[in-house]
Amino acid sequence: MQGTRLDTARIRAARRVIDPIFLDTPLYRCEALERVLGCMVSVKLETANPVRSFKARGTEVIASLLAGDGSGAVVCASAGNLGQAIAWSGRGRGLDVTVVASRFAPRAKLDRIRALDARLELVDGDFDLARERAAAIARHDGIRLVEDSLDIETCEGAATIGLELVDAAPSFDAVLIALGGGALATGVGHVVKSLAPQTEVICVQPLGAPAMTLSWRRRRVVTTGSTDTIADGVAGRRPIPAVLDDLLVVADDAVLVQEASIIAGMRMLLDHAGLVVEPSAALGVAAILEDRDRFAGRHVVTIVCGSNVDVDAYRRWVGAAPVHGS
Amino acid sequence: MQGTRLDTARIRAARRVIDPIFLDTPLYRCEALERVLGCMVSVKLETANPVRSFKARGTEVIASLLAGDGSGAVVCASAGNLGQAIAWSGRGRGLDVTVVASRFAPRAKLDRIRALDARLELVDGDFDLARERAAAIARHDGIRLVEDSLDIETCEGAATIGLELVDAAPSFDAVLIALGGGALATGVGHVVKSLAPQTEVICVQPLGAPAMTLSWRRRRVVTTGSTDTIADGVAGRRPIPAVLDDLLVVADDAVLVQEASIIAGMRMLLDHAGLVVEPSAALGVAAILEDRDRFAGRHVVTIVCGSNVDVDAYRRWVGAAPVHGS
Repeated sequence: MQGTRLDTARIRAARRVIDPIFLDTPLYRCEALERVLGCMVSVKLETANPVRSFKARGTEVIASLLAGDGSGAVVCASAGNLGQAIAWSGRGRGLDVTVVASRFAPRAKLDRIRALDARLELVDGDFDLARERAAAIARHDGIRLVEDSLDIETCEGAATIGLELVDAAPSFDAVLIALGGGALATGVGHVVKSLAPQTEVICVQPLGAPAMTLSWRRRRVVTTGSTDTIADGVAGRRPIPAVLDDLLVVADDAVLVQEASIIAGMRMLLDHAGLVVEPSAALGVAAILEDRDRFAGRHVVTIVCGSNVDVDAYRRWVGAAPVHGS
Repeated sequence: MQGTRLDTARIRAARRVIDPIFLDTPLYRCEALERVLGCMVSVKLETANPVRSFKARGTEVIASLLAGDGSGAVVCASAGNLGQAIAWSGRGRGLDVTVVASRFAPRAKLDRIRALDARLELVDGDFDLARERAAAIARHDGIRLVEDSLDIETCEGAATIGLELVDAAPSFDAVLIALGGGALATGVGHVVKSLAPQTEVICVQPLGAPAMTLSWRRRRVVTTGSTDTIADGVAGRRPIPAVLDDLLVVADDAVLVQEASIIAGMRMLLDHAGLVVEPSAALGVAAILEDRDRFAGRHVVTIVCGSNVDVDAYRRWVGAAPVHGS
């Protein structure tokens, strides 16, 4: 494998500063899902923790570094999950946390950021506008800007999931990873391609927010004008060049899925696995639904990366009749 | 503490024969629940595994013993979760598994028992009738009868949850445990009262299936004529004397809750924790809802013991408007 910005020894070291509550998350086969999806399916569950997403793996690394060097304040842009995670990690270490988010982000995510004692600033635009605003705050206040996927600690934290996957036996034929900014995909992908290269690394993004996938396919950054997806956690328009470079090394494929498949995936995870997930966490199941032949009989693991949904919206999405079969 | 049938050294030994996929389950504070319940709430999550309940901790112990002594067949009565668990544990060890259940048990539980290659026999009556039928099969066929809560391995398996709770820091003020046959309550209770005696052990049962609670209160076995609760997992009528004896030693209290509180508890776990649970797993939250003053400001842990629900029934129970506050 070509080099990436990640380093496996550093990822192993990251495990030692992450609160164990976020590590060694459940990983198990879900046979009820297998019967409807036609392949062996293991779930890597990143929702059973205080922030209900995988993001704290990275923010624990960041916050421990900041606390260690005496930094008192940090600002980040967030689609919602990073903000909760940095608020949680920062609160425990006495950091002053500011989160910038879109006012269109799910209310549950925004409420939980506030509840974790972070300062929350809303922008009248999308995640990429929040990124600009967070950078401006960092410059103005002279405080640390955390940039998801660009800051290597966010990738290293996510990569600890990869360590837990490659330790599993038997090994997987493919790992399905939600693709947004790329921290999860490049982090997990780096570990998988380094330590279990026979496992296919497949990134999954909504058709309505395809910037990183299009960039991966064209091998250069492609930005898009707007996004149109319920998968708010992965809805970016402006891929980061350094992250794309890593993704080009570690991803075997990047696929785009329709909104209807994301919703069907959420329903299947509820009906057959008893799991409430946010749309981004259903991308893996959506990818199987859209290409059953590709996965038939193989053993895939899908990272269920978050469960922060507005309950009303969730009920609208999955409230129809249960999904039997497909 | 007076003696019980349980022994902490044997419980520690049990951990070594249980598939690790069922051990060291998530244990985390849920602040969103805390805001609506008025106390510190930690969740011990027993649903993120292949059988979606804690029962496999016990069946792993049983199946490993049976496989070790060359026994080839086993029969048990089950409300649904034990049957799935013994089917899972038995399949992996080449055992021939028969499960007897009520035909009124949730369809999802029955379907999953069959899907795990067990022979399923339905009786036209409740769980206690299934117990009689399972005993008759065992006598007739000369095979091992597994009796939930009476067979010490079922209690020892459940008790491994207790080991994980007492290892947590800080310690808990109270642990809320669903009470049915008593394996979970006596197992966890034994460990907690042995190793963290300051923690209050509170058992929770539905008003509609109160036999064990009434027995605990009167210190003698009280049977009831029928049950009337959606909490199918804990709906027994005939407490087992030896189990009651242990419960009298380890339980600080046994409380009864209304059906409306169980449903409100399920809704709160969905709305504020993103967890789908079966009714029995909401008993702890129901107990808090019915006696907020008792728990105000204290740190309680509730064991979310299962998530095997019929999705249609679940939607009926929690499908109304989200619960904000109470």
